[in-house]
Order: sequence, then structure tokens, then C-alpha cells
Amino acid sequence: MVIIMKPGTEETVISKVINKVEELGFKPHPIYGVINTVVAVIGDRTQEAMDTLQSMPGVDRVVPILRPYKLAGREVQPESTVVRVGEQVEIGGRVVVIIAGPCAVESREQYLATGRYVKAAGAHILRGSLYKPRTSPHDFQGLHEAGIELLQAAREELGMPIITEVLDPRHIELLEPVTDVFQIGARNMQNFALLVEVGRTNKPVLVKRGMSATVDDLLKAAEYVLVGGNNNVVLCERGIRTFETQTRNTLDISAVPVIKRFSHLPVIVDPSHASGEAWLVPALSKAALAAGADGLMIETHPSPQNALVDGPQSLRPDEFRQLLDDLRPFAEAAGRTL
Amino acid sequence: MVIIMKPGTEETVISKVINKVEELGFKPHPIYGVINTVVAVIGDRTQEAMDTLQSMPGVDRVVPILRPYKLAGREVQPESTVVRVGEQVEIGGRVVVIIAGPCAVESREQYLATGRYVKAAGAHILRGSLYKPRTSPHDFQGLHEAGIELLQAAREELGMPIITEVLDPRHIELLEPVTDVFQIGARNMQNFALLVEVGRTNKPVLVKRGMSATVDDLLKAAEYVLVGGNNNVVLCERGIRTFETQTRNTLDISAVPVIKRFSHLPVIVDPSHASGEAWLVPALSKAALAAGADGLMIETHPSPQNALVDGPQSLRPDEFRQLLDDLRPFAEAAGRTL
Amino acid sequence: MVIIMKPGTEETVISKVINKVEELGFKPHPIYGVINTVVAVIGDRTQEAMDTLQSMPGVDRVVPILRPYKLAGREVQPESTVVRVGEQVEIGGRVVVIIAGPCAVESREQYLATGRYVKAAGAHILRGSLYKPRTSPHDFQGLHEAGIELLQAAREELGMPIITEVLDPRHIELLEPVTDVFQIGARNMQNFALLVEVGRTNKPVLVKRGMSATVDDLLKAAEYVLVGGNNNVVLCERGIRTFETQTRNTLDISAVPVIKRFSHLPVIVDPSHASGEAWLVPALSKAALAAGADGLMIETHPSPQNALVDGPQSLRPDEFRQLLDDLRPFAEAAGRTL
Amino acid sequence: MVIIMKPGTEETVISKVINKVEELGFKPHPIYGVINTVVAVIGDRTQEAMDTLQSMPGVDRVVPILRPYKLAGREVQPESTVVRVGEQVEIGGRVVVIIAGPCAVESREQYLATGRYVKAAGAHILRGSLYKPRTSPHDFQGLHEAGIELLQAAREELGMPIITEVLDPRHIELLEPVTDVFQIGARNMQNFALLVEVGRTNKPVLVKRGMSATVDDLLKAAEYVLVGGNNNVVLCERGIRTFETQTRNTLDISAVPVIKRFSHLPVIVDPSHASGEAWLVPALSKAALAAGADGLMIETHPSPQNALVDGPQSLRPDEFRQLLDDLRPFAEAAGRTL
Repeated sequence: MVIIMKPGTEETVISKVINKVEELGFKPHPIYGVINTVVAVIGDRTQEAMDTLQSMPGVDRVVPILRPYKLAGREVQPESTVVRVGEQVEIGGRVVVIIAGPCAVESREQYLATGRYVKAAGAHILRGSLYKPRTSPHDFQGLHEAGIELLQAAREELGMPIITEVLDPRHIELLEPVTDVFQIGARNMQNFALLVEVGRTNKPVLVKRGMSATVDDLLKAAEYVLVGGNNNVVLCERGIRTFETQTRNTLDISAVPVIKRFSHLPVIVDPSHASGEAWLVPALSKAALAAGADGLMIETHPSPQNALVDGPQSLRPDEFRQLLDDLRPFAEAAGRTL
Repeated sequence: MVIIMKPGTEETVISKVINKVEELGFKPHPIYGVINTVVAVIGDRTQEAMDTLQSMPGVDRVVPILRPYKLAGREVQPESTVVRVGEQVEIGGRVVVIIAGPCAVESREQYLATGRYVKAAGAHILRGSLYKPRTSPHDFQGLHEAGIELLQAAREELGMPIITEVLDPRHIELLEPVTDVFQIGARNMQNFALLVEVGRTNKPVLVKRGMSATVDDLLKAAEYVLVGGNNNVVLCERGIRTFETQTRNTLDISAVPVIKRFSHLPVIVDPSHASGEAWLVPALSKAALAAGADGLMIETHPSPQNALVDGPQSLRPDEFRQLLDDLRPFAEAAGRTL
Repeated sequence: MVIIMKPGTEETVISKVINKVEELGFKPHPIYGVINTVVAVIGDRTQEAMDTLQSMPGVDRVVPILRPYKLAGREVQPESTVVRVGEQVEIGGRVVVIIAGPCAVESREQYLATGRYVKAAGAHILRGSLYKPRTSPHDFQGLHEAGIELLQAAREELGMPIITEVLDPRHIELLEPVTDVFQIGARNMQNFALLVEVGRTNKPVLVKRGMSATVDDLLKAAEYVLVGGNNNVVLCERGIRTFETQTRNTLDISAVPVIKRFSHLPVIVDPSHASGEAWLVPALSKAALAAGADGLMIETHPSPQNALVDGPQSLRPDEFRQLLDDLRPFAEAAGRTL
Repeated sequence: MVIIMKPGTEETVISKVINKVEELGFKPHPIYGVINTVVAVIGDRTQEAMDTLQSMPGVDRVVPILRPYKLAGREVQPESTVVRVGEQVEIGGRVVVIIAGPCAVESREQYLATGRYVKAAGAHILRGSLYKPRTSPHDFQGLHEAGIELLQAAREELGMPIITEVLDPRHIELLEPVTDVFQIGARNMQNFALLVEVGRTNKPVLVKRGMSATVDDLLKAAEYVLVGGNNNVVLCERGIRTFETQTRNTLDISAVPVIKRFSHLPVIVDPSHASGEAWLVPALSKAALAAGADGLMIETHPSPQNALVDGPQSLRPDEFRQLLDDLRPFAEAAGRTL
């Protein structure tokens, strides 16, 4: 880290900072400028050390040099991670992976019907959540335990891997037998108890970016899972909160190349939550592939007007099929297949 | 709600929307304008109904009329709620309540020393968290179970009520015997599993606003606790995420009068997390009292340079005492006492 | 517009609002709900009328129905506008238009050298600004009048149309003889005196989105130019300000399909300013074409390390050539040519 | 500045950066860490030098040490500036200065009536703008030249200094004879042509913070005026754009103490534009005084329902008088008078 002292700080105050740096086990390199003095510090970054030095008299700012994540970074692992889901799906490989399905499992009919047409259209993984984090307690919260057998049924009939959201550390044990990927939703990206718990399994984990999370925050959240020994982490950009109101969130398309540069983990895009409107999904899906995304997570429902959750952003079956067709040339232009 | 149809929508398409409104159990009032047709809908708001109508062809936008929370709103309870903590403290009454203490319980010495000087200075409730939600897994996470006896010791010695943060639904049972207020941190404001669980207790709950949460989102989060039957909810403004980088977060001071107008729940301000820097805490504390806050939550540490968490924003003991003195005239100007 | 009254507003207060609506020349339609009364208002939207009604006792909110722009909207002109620049370039047609060049004209050598290689690589319009809006007065501000002859020289030698930024209404007359497109920069998007002035010319005008402007704000800024009788308006998405710090701004890729849906004006993307870093430009350029942009505005410099402005985001000549090659398959996938 | 090299950068690449630093006239201090090498650079900061180094191979980031403004900073002038307006008013002194009046001058009756009651209530400076920057060209734009005689009339009758907004460099000459303070509105904070022009006068200038401007940006805008030789600059916090929708903007109350710490210029708060609603103005005004603001800028209108601009945020005459009374104890608590 680099410690920037306030202009005109006295020698004795600077000395105390230098002593503290040594006491913390680092090597200080003071550089005396015309206006400010700067102390470069050689050694590993820790938040505690930075906070300690920041709290000292005379210190203006402490600037970190190393990035705040380790296991998620390209520095410790230069080659890209490929996360294997089930027997046949690989996220981060040449194939752009399509995760599709309804926002929530509502009934046997709705769920199996959806599974059938998304599979036929070419999707690789089926969405199916039983616990829905709704901003209001008066809205539909999901089928909960009652839906477990529906996930089981879909998995058996279709032979597709299933991704399901977990909200509570106690859901993990419950859902492990019927799921292939655990999803950590945007609202739980910093639910560290939950991250620690999925880090103890060896199932793939999809971590969605929080609405006000920076890319660094997302990588630090992934770090919680990696630290537990579970390396099967996939990141998901799904829009951040800004002042723009035409879209539900603002898709941060730059996050895709930024994550690819600094992390070895695969990254997918969720254009449905990013926009909140079905008519925007095709344009954002194409942009995501063009920007280098390893996959897409798309909401579709046999009858969006009757969806219990997120109908306005769900594609109808015909729209979903059309989208996959329309995406092929963009996947190809990006040197991939769908 | 009001349904705004797209300009030039055909009669038959409008009819389908009107029929759907009736089918959903509401009463439609179509108004035919020169450019757009509008359908006013009489009846209670539900997200499902709004989503269904939004998904229909010809619909441009659906505008809600009722606010998205009920129990938290002044409409169902015009008089302000006063939340009683322990025997003697009331949040939302004439006294401005001061919650103070370290960000995390670190050791017996640190914790009891802090408790003693904050009590002597006039604070009402002692902060003491054993589980800390840190953005990086490499940072100090708190004492966990090992700290329970320290909360117990402080409570006995000082006779002050204690507020402690819960991150996991399983913490609630564990911490209930030694705590007086459960704190839901900003990162868990939409951890609905946790909100449901504290809603089942009858302990006071402090809900901190999420970094990207609107005031409406905060009130909907409070609604989760209220729906469970626990009416002892206190809201806390602690800064939101914006593009400004001089402060860790941007204190949304307007949230205080806005919440007071639309909700009956008490609201306090956390100037320490809002700013991230100790030197800013006095100005923001004064502003909070002037804007009508029912209390303050302030970080202080016997030796901020040695704090394991958030040292830069912690006041030293002398700074803390000085602050309470300096706040008195502002409390008085606001018609309250400290 | 729709006027939403506060819950429990008395009959007499509602009557006054209804009378005011009539007095303003509109037709009121009151609808009495169980909790709120709503007054739908038939007639054209004006901000004054909305403000007047919003200021009345008993009024909770006034919701506009019509969009706040007219001439820029698809409602008055369903077919897409194609803006002709010089003899040969059309923005909004089948060809994706490439605008390229240095951030600022620095010298004859630098400018002509850039013009030659961007033309050879296939760019259609040459950037060349003499006035640079720099956040600090201590930074290079451009060549000012001294550069006019360089624009003239480049135009003659290369036969390419030139786009130049105007900051002051007095620049317009000065630069009109040597420019083909006037650029209104992001910082001047709401410099209404400037917009009015370019609206009086019949030169094409490129309006860049302000850093905190919504899409609606951008369309209202375009409206200022259109109202003056100048229909040759091109919009440019160049990133908005958010809390994310890995990129200089956050490219709002959704703005492209949103503008295309609500407005007939062509829209291009500036990936250089959106990202602030040259290595991000290729991914964002591809995403822009995939999302439907009509063109790109790209910074390039013969020697970015010696650029006086925005070197870090400027492509080297070889990088620029490579980018255009790499974009071709994406343009094709989008049904266009480069 | 400090140059942080990418991990694993080769010796020869680092040497080139060190040579470049010397070539630019600075003194380099390389520090070789375990993972990254850092080059501390002694010498003055310029954006050009930072951009040049940022563009070089192997460079990860360039971190500035000095703040990006000079004349506006406390480093060059430790004592606070007091800006004198007319004979009797001082902004930045012990008296909290109240600037009040309508958003726009509408007519002789409206303007003089407002001037009379704001003076009687104790305001110090009268607002009076003839040019209004409206987001839509279809909204009222002000009286323009026709209103000059009204400013003249109010100034003579009331003997109060007048503040008026300028939008176009050509307005300055026109309005100089009838105004005491030039106002640069939020939308023009980065209209550098305008800033340069007011910097050439010696009239006080009020610079409002742009909606997406950081505090640093505001200070750099002030620097444009100061560089011209005009030291009479007052800064104004008026809310920034965030995702919160309950208020028109989010008042960044922390900006007051932050500006006070880093700059010697006086700072006032505009609670009317920050909130957009009259009922919020009292709470925000009190908070502003508590946070240390040197003054307030408040909109008031004899009849807000008939205001041509910003009626919903204008106080009625009785509300304005009440507010000034209610503010007195807060001014006193802050050690000032009203």
C-alpha cells in the first residue's frame, strides 16, 4: 500500500507512521516530496493494516496496491476456469451456455411445459427456484418445500441440470439432492453466512452481482466461496442501480470484459433482470455475447400474463425459440457456438 | 393502479385489458384521450396483478396508486410508534437515543472499557456485534460464539441494553438471551429469511437501509418484520451508494423527514458508516438531529488505531464525549433532549 | 396526466382540484376509489400544468401520461430518420458509421497523420475538436482559432467530413465553414443556449448524453435542436456516472434499444469515453453493434503516450485497424455493413 | 503521483517508465515489492503527465497525490474566504445568509411582491432569474431581456442585492449592470466558456454543483473562475442524482463539511432544488445549518400554484416567514446568527 501524508505534516508525526508500519510487519519506504510525503509499504495488503494506518494522525489517504481478492484473481491462476455442470455442460468453454426457465416454479404443468420447450430450443440448464426473494412480504414467495418433487420430476424427465436459488443457509442441505447449481441472488451477494455455507459444498455456485455492488465487491463475494474450497464459481452480471428509470436496472456490459481481465472465473449475463422488460432481452443478449459473456440466463414462461413472478420480463415460448436462432450469428462472430 | 395504453392501441386490444382487469377482481374505468387511452383500476394493489397487466399487449405502463407497504405506513397507523428497549429506553420519544460502541467486540478489556465510557458520557444503548459482515473473507469476522459471555458481562456490569447484529437465521436463537435489540445490517436488508425470523421474536429490531435501497425498499423490508407480528421496528439511515468518492457512502439526510411522513416507525441515523471518517461524524450527527432523527448510532473505540474493524470512522473516547456535549443545543433546537 | 389525491382527502378539496383542471383547459375524470381518489385528465401535457396541480392541497402525485418530448418521438414520426453528412455518409442507414480521430487537434502532423490512417482503415467521419471542455483549467484546452486551418487542410486533403465540438454559442458561426457535424459534448447536453443556436443552423448535430442524464433528458435536449427547425440530430450514448470505479463511466448499452423504440433519431455509441481505457474499446464496440447502434465514435491517436488529451483511451493506429476488421462479423450478424 | 506497475512486469518495461518520468521533468523513486513494483514520482501533478504514464505498457494505475485544484484549496489559502455582496452582505461570515425569491421573474407584481415579503422576513439577497434552463423547450424559458427593468426596479425599491442566473457568455455583459451575484446553474457547472467569462468580471459568482458532479469536480469548476482573477466565488450544494425517487435529487449534506475542510470558499445549500417539494424544505434547511452551511437559497412564491416554474418546491409567504423563525435556534446552536 501507499500512505499519503497530509501536506505540511511534521517530521515526528511521519516517524510515528513509519514506526507503525514496521510494527505491523511491513517495510516502509518514505519519499519526501515538495508538498506531501508519501510512504510506500512493501508487504501483503490487509484491511486491518490499512485501517490502522488510516486512523493515524497526519495520514491523508491509504491507497491499496494489491487487489482485494486473491483466489478469484488471474494473478494466482492465469488460465480461465471452466465450471462443469452435470455430465455434459461446461461454463467457460467454447459453447455459450443458455440457462432458461421461469422465475419461479409455480406448478407441475407450468414447470414441465417450460422445461420441455426450453430443452427443445437448445437451452442447457433449467432454472427452477422454490424460494423467491420478493421485496414485499405480500407477494408470492415460491412453493418452498412443496416444490422439491417438481425439481426432481423435471430433472428425471428432461435429463437437464437444474439451477435453484438458496436464501437461507438451511436451504442448502434441503436442496442439494435435487439441484445441480446453487444460485446466490443479487440481494444475497453479501449474505456471507450463505456464501460460507455454499463454499462448503462442491456443487457449482452462480453468484449474481448485487444491485449496488462494484465488480470488486462481486469478486470478494466469490472469494468467500473459493476460500471454503469450492472452486466451481460462476459470476453473473444482472444490472446495477442507477438514476435511469426506463429500465429496471442498468446492465453494466463493461463488467464482462473487466471480470474476464482480472479474474479467471466464467461470467454470464442475465438480460431479463437487467432490463425488466421482455422486448429488451434480445438486444441485451446479443450485446452480452458480443462483449464476451460465457452464457446467458433468460426468463421464459409458457404464458407470461399468468406468471406469478416477473411476467413482464419473461419471453413467450415462440419468442424464446426465435431469440436462440437470432443469437447464433453473434455467437459465431464471437468465435463460439450456442 | 392506472394502466396507460400505448398510443393508437386498437379497441379490441383495449377490451382484452379491460376484461382482464375484471377477471382479476378489480373495477376498470377506461378514459379515452386524444392520444392515449388510460384505464383506472379501483381495488387493492398487488404486484402480481400489476405484472399480469404489464405483460399484456398494448400496455405501455402500469402506475401504482397505493404505496407498496401497508403495516409500516401512516395510513394504517397515523400515530408515531415508540419502541421500548429494556426498562428505560424509548426510541421515538422526546429523548434522542444514542447507540454507541465499537464496530465489533474484540476482547473483554476493549469491550468493557468502551461500555464504561459511553455510559458515562450519556449513551443509552451499547453496540456489540459478534458477527461482522466483511466484504472480504480475509478480514476479521468477529468473535462469534466466543463473545457471548462478553455481551453478558457488559450487560450485567453496566446495566445498559445491548444491540447486536445477526447475519444468519440461526444466530437469533443463539443471541436472544444476551441481546436487547437485533440489528439487521445494510447488506442483509433484503435477506428475507432473516427478516422473517426476527419477525417471529418480540425483541426490538433495527433495520439498516441497504446501500442501494430506496426508502420504499426499506419500508418493505420493515414490512417483513411487522407481518410476522413484531411491531418493534426501528429504521436506520446509514448512507447510500453514489458516484461521490470523498465519503464512503452518501448520507441521504432527506430520508429522515421522508420516512417520518410516510411511516409511523422511528428512524435513526448512523453517521459513522455514512461517512467512513471520524472527522465527519460531528457535522452529520448535528444534521441528523436537525432533520428530525430519533437517535444516532455512533462508532467509538478506546483506541481507533488498534481497532480490528472500521478504525478510521471510530471516535476516540474524548471525541465521543465532546460530541455528546456539542449535540445538546441541536437536540434542544429540535425540541428534544439528549 | 393522472392526479393521485392523498388518502382521505375531503370532497371540497378534491373539487378545487377538479375546478383547476377545467380552468387550465383540460377535461377532468374523477374516479373515487376505496382509499384514494384519482383524477384522470384528458389533454396535452405541459410542465406548468403539472406543477400547478402538484402544488395544490390534497394532491399526492401527478403522473404524466404522454412522454415529455414530441418532435423526437416515434409518435409524430414512425419511420427512422437518416441523417446525411456531406455527400456520401448516412447515419441511420444500413452502413454502420465510424467516426474516428484524436480527442483534440494538436498539430498539423498529428492531425493529418491520424486522418490518413483512419480513412485508410475505413472510417467515415474524422473527429477534430479545437475547444476541449476539461474539468480543470490547468489542463490543455485545445488549439482554439489557431486550429481552424488544420480542419480546413484535413477536409481538403482527405475529402472526409469533419465533426467538431462547440462549447460556446459564438463558436458556431466561427466553425460552420470548416465543419460538417457540430458536436454537443456530454457536459453541454443541457447548455440550452448552445442547443438553441445549433438548432438555427441546418448542419447535422451530434448530441452526447450527459453523465447524469436519463434517456428522457437526452431526448428533451434533442427536442431543443428540433424545435429550431434542424432535423439532422444524431444521439450518442457515452456512459453514465455510477458508483462503479473500474471504468470511467458505465456504458448504458440498453439506451440503444430504448432510444430506437421511443425515438426516430439515429443513435451511436462512444466506447472510448464510456470506458476510459483503450483495452475495453473492442468489447464495447462489438456490444454496441450487437445492440443495434447506428455507428461508433472512437478515439485514436498516432502515439497515445504523447496525446495531450485522453491518451489512455486512445487506440494506436494498428489497434484501430484491427478493431475495424474484428467488427465486420458483428456488423454482418446485425444485418449491416461497416 | 504514484505509478503502480502490473504484477510481473519485466525490468526493461519498468525502465522505460522510469525514463519517461525523468523526461517529463519529475524525479522517479522506484520501490520493488514482492508482487508489484511501484514508482513514486516527486513533482507537480498535471493531467497530461498522468495520462501519458497511464498509456505506457506495464502500467496498471496512476494514483494522484495532490488534489486536482490549487486556488480553491486550503493548501494555498488556509483562512476562509468571505465574499462581500453589495455594501452589507457577507457570505462566509458569522451571519447565515438567506437568498430567497421565485425560481423565475414572471411579472412586475409577482416579483416586487416577493421581494417585499422576503425582505421583511429577513432575507439578505433576492433571487431573480430572467433565463431559465428548462429540460424541455416547450416549457417557460423566462422573461429574457424584457425582465431587466424589473430587476432594476426591485433593486431600487428594496435596496437588496440581486442574484441572477446566466446561461450564455453573452448574458454577462447584458446583466452586469442590474445584478450583484451571477449564478451558474447546476446544468452549466461544466460550461467552461461561461465560467471563463464570469471569471473575467469581479462580481461574486455562485457556482451550483452539477447533478452528477463530485465535490472535486465542483472545486475544479470554481478553479476556472478563480484562475480568471475573480476570487468572489461561493459554492452551492443542491442535490445529486441517485436512484432514490422520493426526492427530486439527493441532498449530499456531507458535501458541506467536506468542502469546508478542503477549500476556503464559502458554501451554501439549496434545499428547494435538492428536494423538489416544499414540505421537505424546513427539515433540509435545519440540517444544512447544523452541518455548517454559510447560507441557504430558498424558493418562495406569492402563490405557488400559479408559479410558472417549480411551484411544487416553492414556499408560500407564510411558510417562508415561519421557516426563518424556526431556523433561528439552529443558527444559534451552530454559533451563528440569521
